[in-house]
Amino acid sequence: MLALFGNLFDTALGDVHQEHVACLVEGRNVKIERIVSFGQKSPPGFWYDQPWAEWVVVLAGSAGLRFEGEADVKVLSEGDYILIPARVKHRVEWTDKDHATIWLAVHYPETE
Amino acid sequence: MLALFGNLFDTALGDVHQEHVACLVEGRNVKIERIVSFGQKSPPGFWYDQPWAEWVVVLAGSAGLRFEGEADVKVLSEGDYILIPARVKHRVEWTDKDHATIWLAVHYPETE
Repeated sequence: MLALFGNLFDTALGDVHQEHVACLVEGRNVKIERIVSFGQKSPPGFWYDQPWAEWVVVLAGSAGLRFEGEADVKVLSEGDYILIPARVKHRVEWTDKDHATIWLAVHYPETE
Repeated sequence: MLALFGNLFDTALGDVHQEHVACLVEGRNVKIERIVSFGQKSPPGFWYDQPWAEWVVVLAGSAGLRFEGEADVKVLSEGDYILIPARVKHRVEWTDKDHATIWLAVHYPETE
């Protein structure tokens, strides 16, 4: 069920041993997700390889994103957003272990 | 020009006498905007009447939204989001006068 309203900063989510993903909007050409991480990261060797573009922001906490072929991990702190084009492989190297990391992600087809 | 990355909480925007609107993503079926208000509100008698749905969140500050036909003003505080369906008339009754109010809005066509 999609909630029509709510609060992105509400972290009374219970189990911190798993990432919480909530779909806030799901349309034909857009999906808005809120993700809350508690130190979780992508498994070894795993890369996201998505058919849609993803605009993503870290609203609380922090995270390290790695893009395929890049040596440096991009650190996202509170408020930092980035646009990940479709098919650009990336992975989450780390998320904050001491605080909840709240992500907001908007997925959409890459059309002009 | 659309920035590929940036920070939503950066309020070093200069002039506080006007609202700042930045388009972060503009695709065929999605538009992501960041708006920073400094006490601005909709002019008397003005109503937004939009052809697309709008998912909007207040990330900092606070604001009062009024929907046509509703007596109460809906107060949005930090983190509060709401989905405004297409063609639902609404207006901004007030935004925080003492602090910047940072909005993030995702506009998209209402299709199933």
